[in-house]
Amino acid sequence: MRRRLTILGSTGSIGRQALDVVSRYPDRFELVGLSAGNDARALALQAAEFTPEYIALESGDTGPLEGLTAEVLAGPGSAGRLAGAPSDVVLNGIVGFAGLAATVGALQAGNRVALANKESLVAAGEWVMDLAANNRIIPVDSEHSAIFQCLEGRRQEEIAGILLTASGGPFYAFEKARIVEAGPEDALRHPTWRMGRKITIDSATMMNKGLEVIEAHHLFGVRFEDVRVVVHRQSVVHGGALFEDGSVVLHAALPDMRLPIAFGLIYPERVDVGAEPVPFDGVTWSFEEPRNDVFRCLPLAVEAGRAGGAYPVALNAANEVAVEAFLDGRIRFLHIADVIEEVLEVVPDFGMMQSMEAIVTVDGWARDEARRRANGDSR
Amino acid sequence: MRRRLTILGSTGSIGRQALDVVSRYPDRFELVGLSAGNDARALALQAAEFTPEYIALESGDTGPLEGLTAEVLAGPGSAGRLAGAPSDVVLNGIVGFAGLAATVGALQAGNRVALANKESLVAAGEWVMDLAANNRIIPVDSEHSAIFQCLEGRRQEEIAGILLTASGGPFYAFEKARIVEAGPEDALRHPTWRMGRKITIDSATMMNKGLEVIEAHHLFGVRFEDVRVVVHRQSVVHGGALFEDGSVVLHAALPDMRLPIAFGLIYPERVDVGAEPVPFDGVTWSFEEPRNDVFRCLPLAVEAGRAGGAYPVALNAANEVAVEAFLDGRIRFLHIADVIEEVLEVVPDFGMMQSMEAIVTVDGWARDEARRRANGDSR
Repeated sequence: MRRRLTILGSTGSIGRQALDVVSRYPDRFELVGLSAGNDARALALQAAEFTPEYIALESGDTGPLEGLTAEVLAGPGSAGRLAGAPSDVVLNGIVGFAGLAATVGALQAGNRVALANKESLVAAGEWVMDLAANNRIIPVDSEHSAIFQCLEGRRQEEIAGILLTASGGPFYAFEKARIVEAGPEDALRHPTWRMGRKITIDSATMMNKGLEVIEAHHLFGVRFEDVRVVVHRQSVVHGGALFEDGSVVLHAALPDMRLPIAFGLIYPERVDVGAEPVPFDGVTWSFEEPRNDVFRCLPLAVEAGRAGGAYPVALNAANEVAVEAFLDGRIRFLHIADVIEEVLEVVPDFGMMQSMEAIVTVDGWARDEARRRANGDSR
Repeated sequence: MRRRLTILGSTGSIGRQALDVVSRYPDRFELVGLSAGNDARALALQAAEFTPEYIALESGDTGPLEGLTAEVLAGPGSAGRLAGAPSDVVLNGIVGFAGLAATVGALQAGNRVALANKESLVAAGEWVMDLAANNRIIPVDSEHSAIFQCLEGRRQEEIAGILLTASGGPFYAFEKARIVEAGPEDALRHPTWRMGRKITIDSATMMNKGLEVIEAHHLFGVRFEDVRVVVHRQSVVHGGALFEDGSVVLHAALPDMRLPIAFGLIYPERVDVGAEPVPFDGVTWSFEEPRNDVFRCLPLAVEAGRAGGAYPVALNAANEVAVEAFLDGRIRFLHIADVIEEVLEVVPDFGMMQSMEAIVTVDGWARDEARRRANGDSR
């Protein structure tokens, strides 16, 4: 039977790779909808090729969408509305907060979500997991997909924890003095993955891993102290399950986003998407502890995750502002963590994060706080 | 509910470690029986401590067993008879052919077998797996236990193959000229596991891995071409499952036989037996291809396994004789493979291996053939 599929953020990196998977296995999918932020032209081309029932454009001119057979949803919130259309799987590849509303919309409609949007779990993990109780969220990033695949079919009682690997970023092996001097161009050289600027900096600061720890905590229901982060420079092992008896099961794959995307779309089945198999002919894998004293974003994120409520929202917002300030040359690399820490120290009581309004309020507050700190001093 | 457990070969290495597991979790087990080859004194001590219903002694003086509350079975075949007593799990830790009869006895009685006896699958894989169809065999060695744990809960269709790791033995990194000169004392230095003399030589020649490939083929129903042997010097990753999409799941544990033993006894549960957890703090794992041109026992075993019938029986018997000849200084290290190959070249049609008689006939024939070759020439 064909799987009814909606792809949110279809013109982005995750969305385009998902459509690559669909085009390899056209008989397996029936496209319910495609959504884009503002690239109407790219969306129109995709819609012409894949003929979805619906297309949604969050902002911008819908002119290029005219003449298509698909029904058009337009304007802010259209992706969230599309997310509620009956589908077997909604792939959420939206970047940023808009993705949270779409996750909530899909789950409330009873759709399964293949989740690539980080904000959904970082900012609203408890809320989203409450909504997901009767559906399932299949994570679509290499680490959580790896952990998901390791935990599959296991009984809760045999699991002692989970393992989350980090490439360590470009500075992992540097002495601290050299990291102090690092500029944006140094940080943008990621050893194994090619990604956008923001996420590449997050990888260099280890904030990316910190956010993933928060996501893993929610997704897999594991305590923060049972999430073990390990630096693995080769980015072949992406995650694992730690068992009560001291043994572990690890998932390995060459870095290729099509793998977790295809897994998220086709689960519980699995298809060949043309990825290279893991090589074992003269390869070496290393595992090291993270340098939490130097790369402080990881322990800050774990702390914020443990505190819960508004803290992860504030962490995420302050980080975005601090990374922007670093990329603009306004603060230094190691001060990204300082800005975040200072914001986390003054978070007032915002209550539970169980609505978009609550989250947007904290987000705005934290951005202001972070901006003042990133601009206001002599860094 | 307590698990009714029979341990065959209880005075051997596997049996003693199994009783160590039992003594850690006395509330989980009820001992049905213990069997030993000829060490009546050790068996009596175990029976006094663990109070099984039955004890069995294959040969030797039953004097030390007098006065115990357990019912005594004595003489050749007593382990096989004990294996048929109703049990939830029969751990078969018997070394050699006697173990095959016990495996058959246990399976015919409908008992689950935690299998550590190599001969059961190497010599009679098809027969044993036929008998096991309505029960289950849980493998009790680190490699097959690892693979079993990786395959658990997976659908047959997603599996492209399995991975079996080999330490490579003491000579793996040597140049061929140095291996030619190697004596028994060199070969007995195993890098990671402490084992008996025979199995240590098998590890040096890679025959051990060859036999394990044959076992894996039967246990997991995978084709020989889908069993991938990889040299992994650190012996931390023991096996894995290769998926259709090119990714893999691996099982890792520090070398500690109590882990697969406990898993075999308690499956599908899992208990802490005091094993050290896998370290990730500054460790390196390497993976290399086996050197099949130098260590020819591995490809010979795969060939024999593929041919099936009498060939694996002949392989195993010829190997035992050749290893003995090497340990006695009658043949050189690399000639072990020559003896085996010469025997395999002249195997007549012995028909199917579906009875002890057929297997014992081939075994005797191959030992004679191998002995003549190991003694008769100028090596």
